[in-house]
Amino acid sequence: MEPVRPRGRRPAGADTRGAILAAARAEFAERGFEAASMRSVARRAGVDPALVRHYFPDRTELFAVSVLPPTANPAEVAARIVGGGLPGLGERLVTEVLTLWGGDDGEAFRAAAGLMAGNLERPRALVAYLGRTIFEHIGRLVAPDEVALRVGLLVSQVAGLLMVRFVIRMEPLASLPIGQVAAVVGPTLDRYLSAPLAELVPARP
Amino acid sequence: MEPVRPRGRRPAGADTRGAILAAARAEFAERGFEAASMRSVARRAGVDPALVRHYFPDRTELFAVSVLPPTANPAEVAARIVGGGLPGLGERLVTEVLTLWGGDDGEAFRAAAGLMAGNLERPRALVAYLGRTIFEHIGRLVAPDEVALRVGLLVSQVAGLLMVRFVIRMEPLASLPIGQVAAVVGPTLDRYLSAPLAELVPARP
Repeated sequence: MEPVRPRGRRPAGADTRGAILAAARAEFAERGFEAASMRSVARRAGVDPALVRHYFPDRTELFAVSVLPPTANPAEVAARIVGGGLPGLGERLVTEVLTLWGGDDGEAFRAAAGLMAGNLERPRALVAYLGRTIFEHIGRLVAPDEVALRVGLLVSQVAGLLMVRFVIRMEPLASLPIGQVAAVVGPTLDRYLSAPLAELVPARP
Repeated sequence: MEPVRPRGRRPAGADTRGAILAAARAEFAERGFEAASMRSVARRAGVDPALVRHYFPDRTELFAVSVLPPTANPAEVAARIVGGGLPGLGERLVTEVLTLWGGDDGEAFRAAAGLMAGNLERPRALVAYLGRTIFEHIGRLVAPDEVALRVGLLVSQVAGLLMVRFVIRMEPLASLPIGQVAAVVGPTLDRYLSAPLAELVPARP
């Protein structure tokens, strides 16, 4: 274990959380998810490791929050998506996700995709965090033993849409107004969430 | 321009194509897509650059073929997908794609995803190649001015499905038999290909 020698202490507060996130971004980008630790992020941010843990319970959440756009508020996003129940949920989900990641023309998503690539643990960390903060709320609307399949299908369409819109930038999907993309893709998500399981995955001989 | 000094010449043939692909994989992995060239791949493979160009017209195609599983035959895959026309095309497409990339439990896809990450040009190169060899054939089944949107939607769902099945490995989608995944996701692709455009993308105020 290395001794902890913070270069200077900061008081807790909004700016401290931001400083920890900035340090985490730099640490993950330079050293990678596996080599970076709560301790090394604390050292880089000049705060006590306990303060890092105060804001972020573990490295997975610290990583996930650090790759989300700084303005992201998953609790509010989840409330807006789930608010109206299942009807229209697909459209609301696409609208929220494209608005969340599209603020800087997709730069935050490209940076996140770059950090996660060639690696299994990092995309899983982000998905686990979004699972806890967003998809778990959606999952409560469907039968418990069907949540994993239905949410997995949701993630497959949403992740691919983000790739095509922000990374590969295939037109017209890259530039189509969010409302129109939501109208096209929303019904796919609604079917994944609401179609009877026997219809969705017919028993095969 | 560097002088070309191949370390040794190989005769043309099946083994030469394989040797060029192996050299390309090593070259792209070590130097990246941007730094590698037809010339540097030829040098590494010990063949004349003209021979590389004989098998692969440009660096984009060389890259795309080098990240596809070695057994991939896009022309045959396209024929099987498009053979029956639009009915059932979605299921056939999912079946072919998951069979193609699933042969080594997704290892080839994870390697490809790793090579492409944090980069715009590389995934575009793969999509451009798959566009020429597979999606162009599918696109001939739909109205020319609707191809880009419909194929973009197809790519979004298929790319995300590959991520969830082979990279994030979310269960049950990671282990579900291919036929069942095809039954779930096929209708999504059929709708993207066949739904009337006015229904797919309603005009918004």
